[in-house]
Amino acid sequence: MKPSTPKGTRDFGPEEVARRNYIFSTIKEVFSLYGFQPIETPSFENSETLLGKYGEEGDRLIYRILNSGDYLSKVDDQTYEEKNSLKISSIISDRALRYDLTVPFARFVVQHQNDLVFPFKRYQIQPVWRADRPQKGRFREFYQCDADVIGSDSLWQEVEFIRLYDTVFDRLGLKGVSIKINNRKILSGIAEIIGAEERLIDFTVALDKLDKIGVEGVEAEMKEKGISEEAVEKLRPLLNLSGRPSEKLAEMKAFLKDSEIGKEGVEELEFVVDTIGELGLKSSSLVVDITLARGLNYYTGIIIEIGAPEGVKMGSIGGGGRYDDLTGIFGLKNMSGVGISFGLDRIYLVMEELDLFPEAITGGSDVLFINFGDKEALYALKAVMSLRENGIKAELYPDQDRMGKQMGYADRRKIPFTVLAGEKEMEKNVFTLKNMNSGDQQTLGLEELIAEVKKGKL
Amino acid sequence: MKPSTPKGTRDFGPEEVARRNYIFSTIKEVFSLYGFQPIETPSFENSETLLGKYGEEGDRLIYRILNSGDYLSKVDDQTYEEKNSLKISSIISDRALRYDLTVPFARFVVQHQNDLVFPFKRYQIQPVWRADRPQKGRFREFYQCDADVIGSDSLWQEVEFIRLYDTVFDRLGLKGVSIKINNRKILSGIAEIIGAEERLIDFTVALDKLDKIGVEGVEAEMKEKGISEEAVEKLRPLLNLSGRPSEKLAEMKAFLKDSEIGKEGVEELEFVVDTIGELGLKSSSLVVDITLARGLNYYTGIIIEIGAPEGVKMGSIGGGGRYDDLTGIFGLKNMSGVGISFGLDRIYLVMEELDLFPEAITGGSDVLFINFGDKEALYALKAVMSLRENGIKAELYPDQDRMGKQMGYADRRKIPFTVLAGEKEMEKNVFTLKNMNSGDQQTLGLEELIAEVKKGKL
Repeated sequence: MKPSTPKGTRDFGPEEVARRNYIFSTIKEVFSLYGFQPIETPSFENSETLLGKYGEEGDRLIYRILNSGDYLSKVDDQTYEEKNSLKISSIISDRALRYDLTVPFARFVVQHQNDLVFPFKRYQIQPVWRADRPQKGRFREFYQCDADVIGSDSLWQEVEFIRLYDTVFDRLGLKGVSIKINNRKILSGIAEIIGAEERLIDFTVALDKLDKIGVEGVEAEMKEKGISEEAVEKLRPLLNLSGRPSEKLAEMKAFLKDSEIGKEGVEELEFVVDTIGELGLKSSSLVVDITLARGLNYYTGIIIEIGAPEGVKMGSIGGGGRYDDLTGIFGLKNMSGVGISFGLDRIYLVMEELDLFPEAITGGSDVLFINFGDKEALYALKAVMSLRENGIKAELYPDQDRMGKQMGYADRRKIPFTVLAGEKEMEKNVFTLKNMNSGDQQTLGLEELIAEVKKGKL
Repeated sequence: MKPSTPKGTRDFGPEEVARRNYIFSTIKEVFSLYGFQPIETPSFENSETLLGKYGEEGDRLIYRILNSGDYLSKVDDQTYEEKNSLKISSIISDRALRYDLTVPFARFVVQHQNDLVFPFKRYQIQPVWRADRPQKGRFREFYQCDADVIGSDSLWQEVEFIRLYDTVFDRLGLKGVSIKINNRKILSGIAEIIGAEERLIDFTVALDKLDKIGVEGVEAEMKEKGISEEAVEKLRPLLNLSGRPSEKLAEMKAFLKDSEIGKEGVEELEFVVDTIGELGLKSSSLVVDITLARGLNYYTGIIIEIGAPEGVKMGSIGGGGRYDDLTGIFGLKNMSGVGISFGLDRIYLVMEELDLFPEAITGGSDVLFINFGDKEALYALKAVMSLRENGIKAELYPDQDRMGKQMGYADRRKIPFTVLAGEKEMEKNVFTLKNMNSGDQQTLGLEELIAEVKKGKL
């Protein structure tokens, strides 16, 4: 019986960890340049912190932790007899694993509100857990990566987040990413104008599917949900909107001229689009997409979604938006915020598909010293120490195995250099350096050895 | 009802995360220089992977995860009627949170044995969870930090680990750490010589308490456990052993001359002590401590324990040792290994007590641009972008609040510089840089501004 990881979870070996860390540390560095600082929250929260925050479906997907000891003794006999899993869960489980980073962040802000400086800018990169059916690219344990500013309603935040996305993707070498933006206020405005205000959620849910089911599909779904023929008719021109951001915005402005909230939404978008126009983007492009809705109900202003470069089959690789009342669920009202997230697993897959990981990041050793016996090993280890002082990742092979085995070890671990130092070398106080790719050998003093490896290491 | 974290868990704010990351990244860098590469395993494992591996007490402290859906339907009525928590747990919970990194590592090695290159050197820094009673310095969620080599019985590994500890503590500025070593084989040898072989575990458990309960206490406990008066008598001289490592080893050698395993143990220690003598240590000292036993039963050779610098009241801040059969529990026999770990929370506390954290690591922004309105903010943000390109952490205050509020924000966040750029500055294409500590102001062009902030940032 071979041991294995639980379904939907993964082990990460050295190469995967190195590649994941490359993405993580690029993002962290950019977060930091933009003034965001990291926080961390516990892996599990009190159940009442999480339950009821993600809808019924969400509650079902939350992993609950069994209480310790004789937990069943807390269940009274009458309740026990019912044998109702849901009801008994709330008695035998007081804690649950984090389902996302947003609710724990809201809890953090409310709990520590007196110690925080607002506007509070934080980022958080931690795993979350969902009892979802595992699929290709969907796991039960995965990392989320969020940045938020809370306590300011300034649109400069949205501008900064768009630039932040661009900086990250530029540094990762991921060109051609599209940063799609829209405004929930525009969606409200459209619903108002076409007379579908009371069906706002059905309306946005259907609109959000334009990518997948096309204009006809969207119209059919709207009618099915009770949105009138007339309303759908009115909407049609907007579904085919094209052109540059400024052109689209001009059309939207005309369409929404009789809706206060709609006009406000267009003006906000205009500010962001114009400012980004002034500042420029390095390798991404900004796209106004008035069909963008994003599923989460807590968004109230500008919303953002990141599309992978054209030609790569992958859904969105990030997204976010403005919310007006995230901390209200824990009793702290009137805190406007904006947040974004990066879809790490998907970014990893895109980078892999486009072969964007630099070779140098595998993180393995630069040089292996061959072990010819204890006397030679001591001589070698003194040199190894010097190499490490010079920032070179160096190892001594631990056993006096036959040469072929030691060389094979260097080869399989992709270590680019080996050093042979036997009696002859010891006498002259030198080292024989072998380049494992070319097979070239040269005999060098310690200083030269350090210089040569430094020059040749990845 | 203010929301809070579950008992025994912690939120980490930006400063704590920065300080923790300083320790983590120092250790990671050294691991990497010594040829170790990172792996990561899932937060939860199948229950059968963990249960039964840590003794009865350990099993009790493992957090179990409730199965999803109508989990009670899997419990047959007869079993259900018994209302036995322990029995029912094994039906309604298939997964459990990681209790340490050792067992998941053994599972990893066995599962991926065909893809790994042996000797396999890995490190792992991840949280673990224990349903323990929270106390000062003891948490229900905490990070472990382990490095192991598996697949070689070479003593050069022990030598490398001792040097690795020394390198880490030296880089952290933690001077005066004592690296205590002993050998389980010596303990077996002593038990053999004094005729307490059958009481080996009781013997080592008692011996391990010498620090806490003194010679008399240890002797009393041994007698109580059925170790003969005569045996205890024979042991006495060893309890008062002092002097340099080589002197202690000479005495041990004489004492153990009639025990094969004991002699082997002394010879191994001699090799390690002599080699470290040749190589030297930077800021730690190596101490042979024949009363060191370490609780874990899987150790079979040399064992190591790290004592905090004298004067700091703190138990061990790390430890490890040689084991011969870690992966045997999962069916892979004859894999000798050595491993060490760092006690991160305790190292943090020691560093804090000794005031060893460099000021520069708090990770906050270097400069805040004051917001005088949209026109000025755009001018500012262009400069902010240039500063970031130059590796400077820069922010624009998001709102056009009154000056005092913006300055107060910089102050409370300990941002060392602010930049004021109003209409006057815009006209001349300059910036007024204010040093928040000295209060000095100077008017500078962009290039000069970048140079000045770079010079003054932490």
